[in-house]
Amino acid sequence: MKKTDEIINIIVDEINKGIYEVGDKLPSQRALSQRFNVNRSTIVDVMNKLKSFGVITTIEKKGIFVSDSLNVMVHNHVKWKNRIQPHLEKQNQYYIKRINELEFDEKIVRLGTGELSPDLVPINKFKEIMEDDSLHPFTSNYEEPLGNIHLRKAIQKHVLKRGIKCEINEICVTSGALQGLKLIAEGFLLPSSKLYIESPSYMHSVKTWKNYSSTIIPIDINQIERKLMIEERYQSNSLLYLNPILHNPTGHTYSKEVMERLIKECNELGLPIIEDDIYSEIWFDNEPPLPMKSYDLNNNIIYLGSLSKTVSPGLRIGWVIANHNVVKNLAELKMQTDYGASSIAQYVASKWLQYHHDEHINQLIKKLKYKSKKMIQSLDTYFSDIAIWNEPQGSFYIWLKFKEKINMNKLFETCIENNILIHPGEIYDEKQKYALRLSYAYVDELEIDKTIKLLRKIVQQIQK
Amino acid sequence: MKKTDEIINIIVDEINKGIYEVGDKLPSQRALSQRFNVNRSTIVDVMNKLKSFGVITTIEKKGIFVSDSLNVMVHNHVKWKNRIQPHLEKQNQYYIKRINELEFDEKIVRLGTGELSPDLVPINKFKEIMEDDSLHPFTSNYEEPLGNIHLRKAIQKHVLKRGIKCEINEICVTSGALQGLKLIAEGFLLPSSKLYIESPSYMHSVKTWKNYSSTIIPIDINQIERKLMIEERYQSNSLLYLNPILHNPTGHTYSKEVMERLIKECNELGLPIIEDDIYSEIWFDNEPPLPMKSYDLNNNIIYLGSLSKTVSPGLRIGWVIANHNVVKNLAELKMQTDYGASSIAQYVASKWLQYHHDEHINQLIKKLKYKSKKMIQSLDTYFSDIAIWNEPQGSFYIWLKFKEKINMNKLFETCIENNILIHPGEIYDEKQKYALRLSYAYVDELEIDKTIKLLRKIVQQIQK
Repeated sequence: MKKTDEIINIIVDEINKGIYEVGDKLPSQRALSQRFNVNRSTIVDVMNKLKSFGVITTIEKKGIFVSDSLNVMVHNHVKWKNRIQPHLEKQNQYYIKRINELEFDEKIVRLGTGELSPDLVPINKFKEIMEDDSLHPFTSNYEEPLGNIHLRKAIQKHVLKRGIKCEINEICVTSGALQGLKLIAEGFLLPSSKLYIESPSYMHSVKTWKNYSSTIIPIDINQIERKLMIEERYQSNSLLYLNPILHNPTGHTYSKEVMERLIKECNELGLPIIEDDIYSEIWFDNEPPLPMKSYDLNNNIIYLGSLSKTVSPGLRIGWVIANHNVVKNLAELKMQTDYGASSIAQYVASKWLQYHHDEHINQLIKKLKYKSKKMIQSLDTYFSDIAIWNEPQGSFYIWLKFKEKINMNKLFETCIENNILIHPGEIYDEKQKYALRLSYAYVDELEIDKTIKLLRKIVQQIQK
Repeated sequence: MKKTDEIINIIVDEINKGIYEVGDKLPSQRALSQRFNVNRSTIVDVMNKLKSFGVITTIEKKGIFVSDSLNVMVHNHVKWKNRIQPHLEKQNQYYIKRINELEFDEKIVRLGTGELSPDLVPINKFKEIMEDDSLHPFTSNYEEPLGNIHLRKAIQKHVLKRGIKCEINEICVTSGALQGLKLIAEGFLLPSSKLYIESPSYMHSVKTWKNYSSTIIPIDINQIERKLMIEERYQSNSLLYLNPILHNPTGHTYSKEVMERLIKECNELGLPIIEDDIYSEIWFDNEPPLPMKSYDLNNNIIYLGSLSKTVSPGLRIGWVIANHNVVKNLAELKMQTDYGASSIAQYVASKWLQYHHDEHINQLIKKLKYKSKKMIQSLDTYFSDIAIWNEPQGSFYIWLKFKEKINMNKLFETCIENNILIHPGEIYDEKQKYALRLSYAYVDELEIDKTIKLLRKIVQQIQK
């Protein structure tokens, strides 16, 4: 194969130098095989390749000639399409692509979006923070690899309220939890790694992990031990991704017993857990359960937190808490990638956590709880005959399952025609073809009833 | 090989189930090869692997037993060290790691850093911008994939002053130019791709690209055609990275003729150029030359701009300008990665470009020019007998080459002992073992003479 390429280089070079010009007849295959001291079959390969490049052309019964379409090869510009092509597999699933495209359409009502509506994002407080110079001043140079020290101290205090004791060198600030996931994928997955996920799982929608060519395996966490024991015993490069509290999309929360069992089993397996805990603060009644990380005495959990769901998606502030060597490694990757979150965002976040966060969360819970009740009421009215769903204990989502089969693609597209954007269950689990993730976080509370009613009408219409 | 793993699974499973307990003797190799219907050699493989896992142990002349060190396998926690190990090759070079570690040490004088000192970063203007609500309001939800529309419009106007005409859908906002590079690597490099770079080149220090396993080939741009013609003719997945104006680290700038020749040649080759143009605004005298992108009629250049070097490193705002399909692709990857730059940073950047940038650049040029003169004076005084360097036309850097061989590692470490951090030339080119990238951007102007004098003393000391 290498020989073939060498000969091609030599011939192309000779054409470039004008030794053979357009229209010239090339020597016979026998002559070429003698000249290069190779088999005829190698010369046949060379000729086929040169033909495919358009460098030469065969004229029946006459021989092989330097092509007069040589200028086809001398392209006048970069063929971008060909270059993008090999990377198409890195693109998002169909539904996610469509959703990304349409989300910024102002007409559309976003009935599945995992995002606070703009009126719930406290931008005026951010402005206040920028004006206030107390305690530590604002700077805007490169930040430390692990992130701004004041912000890490604020995060340390913040997570302590949730039972997590950690050192500031066990915290790495990221551009949202999504960057944390990306860095973990880059830093800890090998091509042979497996990523175990719940089913359904938000992770199913995260293309990032698929690009690292690890196998994603949905598991039943009740059978984790039997399933993983054998493989993990001598593999040791897999990860388990869990979203234990107010699970996206199902809203499910593990009991303390399940959490402790999982920690014990994974410890024994030496299998690290990635705990995604970006929703648990939005717990509607009483205190939210403590995250698994609070029971993680062996520091085997990589914990992800964020302000994107509770405060502001645009701020792009999240954090990873784990063993110091792990976060150091992630921070190093971050420095190679983009240096992480903006210093302004880190400054605002650090003051935010210290002075404004708790009060905001109290207000936010009230508002989201109200919106969730509204949506549940509407579902009771319009959907109770054809679907089932969970009553949310917090967060944004209602996981709705149709009792009968439904043409989801048609529903999705017909909703768009009616200016409603929905999140089909398939985004989170290929097998969930008749489910929807509904969200009351973004939709205006005055639109909820009207939209759910319209959704029911659309379902009826496509079922005909 | 697969067969081996299957048998291992079965045996480990049987041990787990208690069919074989600790201390039990396993059947003979002959019996096992009969049971699994495989060659003896396969069973030998299986046994060796199980031994290496600590599952079984051989007792001389007695046979093979289930190990009583079985609990070694049942680790009580994740072995992080083993997991980080395979990714060590993703870490930065030695010098870069040391520099990253030490940069935030307050005692140290940073004599090579590519960063404005904090007094040159206009943080008070950022605060003013946050207070001012004119024109378009601040929001902090997720931004559009390509980035905030107001910022993209501001960038469009900004680059037009530098001769670049583009549509707003040809601009993608990134977290600094570094994220742009990362996205291009992820979106356009295949394992077979080559990345052609100048030598020396900043790109040599960017680990990101090496992780995408493409070959990095330093080239002489004067011989680009001969060198690349043959390979690129039928390869078509390589890229050429250039930093044509105020090159990092050499300070070199291409003439218009060279730029036009390169554009022409690369067009003919169908080879895209990545033009890194983050320094050119800091041109000390008259107007800076126009970037290559301004001559790029075929839209074959992926252009990178940034506010990190001219305004604020911590802001994390950069941009990619290219063919719409290219930036759309990059934006899609960005959405999978981290959703890009913070909305606060995008808001500040958009107002900044509209109202404050030009005046700031005028001031900055004066200050940096002054600092550059100071450093050149000191070099003239202390280094003219042992080194040569360029007189900078702008930007941050002086590329200093020692006339004689020098023990660079010893110089680097001895400088650190003396609280000076230098950037050895090797960071940018393996062959440049006796060069330094000096920078006057970060060091206090009152420290320049003192530090250059001390540097000379250290050189003398280690040469003894």
